[in-house]
Amino acid sequence: MESTAEIISIGNELLIGHTLDTNSHWIAKQLTKLGWTLERVTQLRDSLDSIKSGVRESLKRHPSVLVTIGGLGPTHDDMTLAGISRALNKPLRIDKEALQLVKDHYRRLERRPKLTRYRTKMATLPKGSVPLPNPVGTAPGVKTRESGTTIFSLPGVPSEMKAIFKSSLIPYMQSFHTTRPREMEVKITGIIESALAPILDQARKIYPKLYFKSHPRGRETGIRPLILLHIYNIEPGAEQGIAEAAAYVLQELARNEGDGAQKNRVSRNA
Amino acid sequence: MESTAEIISIGNELLIGHTLDTNSHWIAKQLTKLGWTLERVTQLRDSLDSIKSGVRESLKRHPSVLVTIGGLGPTHDDMTLAGISRALNKPLRIDKEALQLVKDHYRRLERRPKLTRYRTKMATLPKGSVPLPNPVGTAPGVKTRESGTTIFSLPGVPSEMKAIFKSSLIPYMQSFHTTRPREMEVKITGIIESALAPILDQARKIYPKLYFKSHPRGRETGIRPLILLHIYNIEPGAEQGIAEAAAYVLQELARNEGDGAQKNRVSRNA
Repeated sequence: MESTAEIISIGNELLIGHTLDTNSHWIAKQLTKLGWTLERVTQLRDSLDSIKSGVRESLKRHPSVLVTIGGLGPTHDDMTLAGISRALNKPLRIDKEALQLVKDHYRRLERRPKLTRYRTKMATLPKGSVPLPNPVGTAPGVKTRESGTTIFSLPGVPSEMKAIFKSSLIPYMQSFHTTRPREMEVKITGIIESALAPILDQARKIYPKLYFKSHPRGRETGIRPLILLHIYNIEPGAEQGIAEAAAYVLQELARNEGDGAQKNRVSRNA
Repeated sequence: MESTAEIISIGNELLIGHTLDTNSHWIAKQLTKLGWTLERVTQLRDSLDSIKSGVRESLKRHPSVLVTIGGLGPTHDDMTLAGISRALNKPLRIDKEALQLVKDHYRRLERRPKLTRYRTKMATLPKGSVPLPNPVGTAPGVKTRESGTTIFSLPGVPSEMKAIFKSSLIPYMQSFHTTRPREMEVKITGIIESALAPILDQARKIYPKLYFKSHPRGRETGIRPLILLHIYNIEPGAEQGIAEAAAYVLQELARNEGDGAQKNRVSRNA
């Protein structure tokens, strides 16, 4: 089974620069820990057309899982499920199980809760989907299956998103056979990226199952430039080579630049 | 002239959850200040196919500006310009002006700089594009025009991205006629989102040129739930109505819930 994912994160607050999308970042980390490959993250405005197109485009790329974040609440501009409904041509209808979840939630808050249309909206799902209990909020998550892709829709409130991710998505994702990644980060000071590039090219030939990425930090001014080198395995069975590959890069750097030209420090090994 | 934008942010480090995409967030804020509408942000892996498709898909949606971030450096996995070259069917070639910018940069760092192929790579642009000087780093930005969309490619190092954005993009974007947005944020405690929803529906009818968005913060537990209500103008000439609209919402809340049921505080007015 493949294990590729996409995220669609929905909300004008993201696109106007009001809110930083820490939700996608958090899920990206979780997916990596689970050995999944996140292929793409898309941030969209609260627009029915935009959500419909975004979901359709994603389904054409056939990820195993598509996670949507945000737009499940009671207000007019919460339109994720309407967008998915249009993308999939599956009509929206009130789901009994979801309505029970919403009722139960308000019963804990109010003596005689009224099921207004705003509240009922949170239980109105595309036909064929399943509600996912929200342990810490109102709007249930939603799971829908479409042509090989499982779509999970989560609320945008971080605590609710995380709670449903943990209770409903992690168990699902763990059922896929994946390779847990291993990684190492090396901080290299005193060398500029263009000098490191040919050494990394060599390293890539010697260790084809490893992924090498250099991140320059600070300006290339010659005065203590800093590069973070991130090495991780992209295929199973290559985990053992990471430390060896890091050692190779450092040895080549020392050989090229003279022993005193840089200080290398292995800073993290997760 | 329209003034819509998209961002494509490139780098495996984003998709594995290693790095939070603060670059897109920063640009989103700038675009909003300039009166532009950011329609979509896409995060892509360091993959030639992925970048090619991402750029082609964006061009089909005809934004006035497409900003790409990242992948301009000297290493093997910096492939943004190769991806744009394929998307546009414009061959890569060494640009004289860009090469001069790269040379000038290394001359400030080294006595006798060598133009290795890694350094020349940063001056290899899709045919027809223009390099944008990088005041604080090596890789120049790149400007390309394709069927009504201007593509700006910026490096992923935040200081370099910001410097080129300020020197090259802001002057370009200011040449468009836009409406500068005004906004107000209201913190509302003691009410849950589903109770606010019908009032916002009313407010939307009364103030059709304003945008109302509620962000629940904290759990809907009944004990001090907090909602941030964000109001801003989406059309010119509606700026004056924002304070009035906020007052309307607060009055309706007070009327529905009784005067003592919530404390409302206008917290910010930018």
